[in-house]
Amino acid sequence: MRLRTDWRASFALVGTVLKYLSVPLVIPVVVALIYNDPLVPFIATIALTIAVGHGLELLNPEPDLEVREAMLFVAISWLAVAAVGAVPYVIAGWGTGSTLAHPVNALFESMSGFTTTGATVLGEISLERHSHAVMMWRQLTQWLGGMGIIVLMVAILPELAVSGAQLVESEAPGPQLQKLTPRIAETARILWLVYFAFTVVYIAILYGLHLAGAAPNMTLYNAIAHGFTTLPTGGFSPEADSVAAFSSIVQWTAIPFMIVAGTNFALFWHVFSGESHRFVRNTEFRAYTGAIAGFAVLLAGILYVGSAPALGELGGVTEGVVENSLRQSAFQITSLLTSTGYATSDFATWNSTGQVVLLFAMLVGGCAGSTGGGIKVVRWLIIFKVLRRELFTASHPEVVRPIRLGGNIVDEDAIRGVLGFSFLYLVIFAIATLVIMLDASRIGYTLTPLEAFSASLATIGNIGPGFGSLGPFGSYLQFPVSSKLLMIFLMWLGRLEIIPVLVMFTGGFWTR
Amino acid sequence: MRLRTDWRASFALVGTVLKYLSVPLVIPVVVALIYNDPLVPFIATIALTIAVGHGLELLNPEPDLEVREAMLFVAISWLAVAAVGAVPYVIAGWGTGSTLAHPVNALFESMSGFTTTGATVLGEISLERHSHAVMMWRQLTQWLGGMGIIVLMVAILPELAVSGAQLVESEAPGPQLQKLTPRIAETARILWLVYFAFTVVYIAILYGLHLAGAAPNMTLYNAIAHGFTTLPTGGFSPEADSVAAFSSIVQWTAIPFMIVAGTNFALFWHVFSGESHRFVRNTEFRAYTGAIAGFAVLLAGILYVGSAPALGELGGVTEGVVENSLRQSAFQITSLLTSTGYATSDFATWNSTGQVVLLFAMLVGGCAGSTGGGIKVVRWLIIFKVLRRELFTASHPEVVRPIRLGGNIVDEDAIRGVLGFSFLYLVIFAIATLVIMLDASRIGYTLTPLEAFSASLATIGNIGPGFGSLGPFGSYLQFPVSSKLLMIFLMWLGRLEIIPVLVMFTGGFWTR
Ligand SMILES: [K+]
Ligand SMILES: [K+]
Repeated sequence: MRLRTDWRASFALVGTVLKYLSVPLVIPVVVALIYNDPLVPFIATIALTIAVGHGLELLNPEPDLEVREAMLFVAISWLAVAAVGAVPYVIAGWGTGSTLAHPVNALFESMSGFTTTGATVLGEISLERHSHAVMMWRQLTQWLGGMGIIVLMVAILPELAVSGAQLVESEAPGPQLQKLTPRIAETARILWLVYFAFTVVYIAILYGLHLAGAAPNMTLYNAIAHGFTTLPTGGFSPEADSVAAFSSIVQWTAIPFMIVAGTNFALFWHVFSGESHRFVRNTEFRAYTGAIAGFAVLLAGILYVGSAPALGELGGVTEGVVENSLRQSAFQITSLLTSTGYATSDFATWNSTGQVVLLFAMLVGGCAGSTGGGIKVVRWLIIFKVLRRELFTASHPEVVRPIRLGGNIVDEDAIRGVLGFSFLYLVIFAIATLVIMLDASRIGYTLTPLEAFSASLATIGNIGPGFGSLGPFGSYLQFPVSSKLLMIFLMWLGRLEIIPVLVMFTGGFWTR
Repeated sequence: MRLRTDWRASFALVGTVLKYLSVPLVIPVVVALIYNDPLVPFIATIALTIAVGHGLELLNPEPDLEVREAMLFVAISWLAVAAVGAVPYVIAGWGTGSTLAHPVNALFESMSGFTTTGATVLGEISLERHSHAVMMWRQLTQWLGGMGIIVLMVAILPELAVSGAQLVESEAPGPQLQKLTPRIAETARILWLVYFAFTVVYIAILYGLHLAGAAPNMTLYNAIAHGFTTLPTGGFSPEADSVAAFSSIVQWTAIPFMIVAGTNFALFWHVFSGESHRFVRNTEFRAYTGAIAGFAVLLAGILYVGSAPALGELGGVTEGVVENSLRQSAFQITSLLTSTGYATSDFATWNSTGQVVLLFAMLVGGCAGSTGGGIKVVRWLIIFKVLRRELFTASHPEVVRPIRLGGNIVDEDAIRGVLGFSFLYLVIFAIATLVIMLDASRIGYTLTPLEAFSASLATIGNIGPGFGSLGPFGSYLQFPVSSKLLMIFLMWLGRLEIIPVLVMFTGGFWTR
């Protein structure tokens, strides 16, 4: 049988991606040299990326990708990078009793990194238990994943007309989007510049706070480590207590940067090009900041009247204190809504009302064209516009009313794509919840419904922490291997907007 | 300002409906005569229905309804009937300490009856506490509500082109659907005949089991009472323990009749017209029975391996006993999936995995054209076909592929309507969950997330019981009045397929 899809071309380009991966692997090598950590895990992985990358490139020296091949390339490259990125964990963990010595755990942590999810199976998160180099590699995977997502969201997916992804273009016609040609690099370079600039500024502010004495434990290592995981809405932290380990001022500082991370990166280009008005007028950005503000005010009220964990606990919420309620609420809503996943409080101990508010915030997601995961704000915007139109046409059946976004009419095919995608997301979320519950109860691990819902949503939405035992100060370690494999799949699926991964499993993709 | 909608015409027809309501009110009068119960509650209500009904009819002696007026008529008639139907509860309860003496509780119970929901605020369900006549009226409201729904689903909504309702027609072209003219009565009469026949057969079988000694407590009163609430997927029972109060054979007997109640009633017409093959070939019916079977097998497995309440409790599930696991599973899935709401076990005490399976079954709903509530099977069918198409077109962007249902192409507008309706349903469900949680915590009543989700879903889906304290052997009595008013609204909304109620709250409905 002759395959219709030229998989050789896709795999050859995956080889190129793997070869490029050897460059950032130099960073953990440098960290290892500074801290006298073992070098083998990283040197070996560099050799592996170059060898495998080169081997794959031989499959097709001049790969030319059509729609199908591009999808396959996208899907396989995330899987391949996650697999190779897991190698340092396995080698470094070998014989030390580290949970990451188990290949499935290592792949989980690596996929969680490169998809910027932030769910962890690390067990004990500490620099005594794991080397500085391994912990920095873990942070770096998220920053690299964020780079990949920017290219994916703004340059690749819109060209593939993946449901709703083309909306990024209609809303943000800033940097001209190009065909899948060498010029893709130009678009990517502009957005990477924005990403890089924000990362540097954030690290500088964090370390500045440290030097000013306002953040005693925000060392240069910690500043860089958090710089690597904020802009990609990643959420990994080398601190077991996440951002709760740092002072209030650090927590307040993180909020605007998480908001930036969930914003369409193309919009910042308008600011740099002196067209700031296009930024504030952007419908999705306004809905996004409105949603954050609305959720945060609601939750702050709930926390203020006292639905909080006991005072004095680490990251506890102090009932009746305005600053504390506002900070905890604003931080946690921003963190979960944008799919970052940092925590300043063990929200797994909050009361059920607060947790349901957080669960709903987790369904929102970032803006299209950002590093945020989830259903995304632009899709919700279109859904709400469709619902309003349904109500209107029910009593005005004779009127044809197009849906507008930022002044442009949204194509009806795109609308169907948005509704279809969102349903696919919810259906997979629901089925995965049930499978995770059944699988856990098989080994006698009883999940509450909220824990199960959050396990599924936090992975497909690339958010990271869930509720209960998989809360922000917990981990996914206790799940059976089969559930971990499912969650690895969910993170992969969610990060790539579902379709490019799922089509591979349809017969029509390979034949006709 | 001149209103665009001729509300006088709608209200005049509501008057006619109210006048007709006086006829079935004779039944509780007869019951009261037999059991020597007070007659005043019912005689007074009969006088009220005739007086108010006649008064409303004077608004427009020859009402002529367009789309808007028909929607208004549908929405207001359910509200008016529920309000008048609550009067016997208030009068009968007055001074007796009955929970129904409170008008909001009475309206809740009445709306729950006429929308065939089956959620109760009765507190103590017993014939010692409430008269036989009042308890039979409660059962009868569901049977009357079911009659109304048949007309609504098969004759009115499809003409209004309410999202997805027109699909009933394309799938079931049996009795020709007519314009909103006097001929509506003809269609209705055929379907009522089916409804009436099944009710009579069911009552006869139940009482027959009693006479044969297989159902000691299934007296004639109980047989009629359950006959009144099975075919309308109602779920009210005069027994505090619902169907758990009866023998296994009664429980097995109820299952096929609940399945019938959730089936498109027009399909039975094919059987009576000698076209049975059209029945079994019906796509929605096959998906519906398939969903019941799939959920039931999954749940039976869960119950069999022991996720059950303690053995020996009333309605307890006996781990490791095939008949018991199968019966409890088949009964509970059928009951909740079809939105009936009967219980043979206190599933509120099952483990969380079993409860999540039940929660998902509650999202399915009956077939279009049945008395079942919820999102409905035909909408899920279309959603899954849309998802499959999305995956297909992602790798075949050049192919235009229509969606077929039972051999007919489904119009793209109808598809958008289905997706829109389903999202509207889910969004209202989510918002209501949050409001119910917040409102409950205001009075210090803490709901688990599952309880809150089920309170919202069981009312908008017209199912009845939820989980936890609002489980099948519990009640909604403990909710604050504000939440009860919200739930009354949700039952009303869900029963009328949302749109006819919600459009009234849009400005465009009244003006332009
Ligand atoms: K994340
Ligand atoms: K019901």
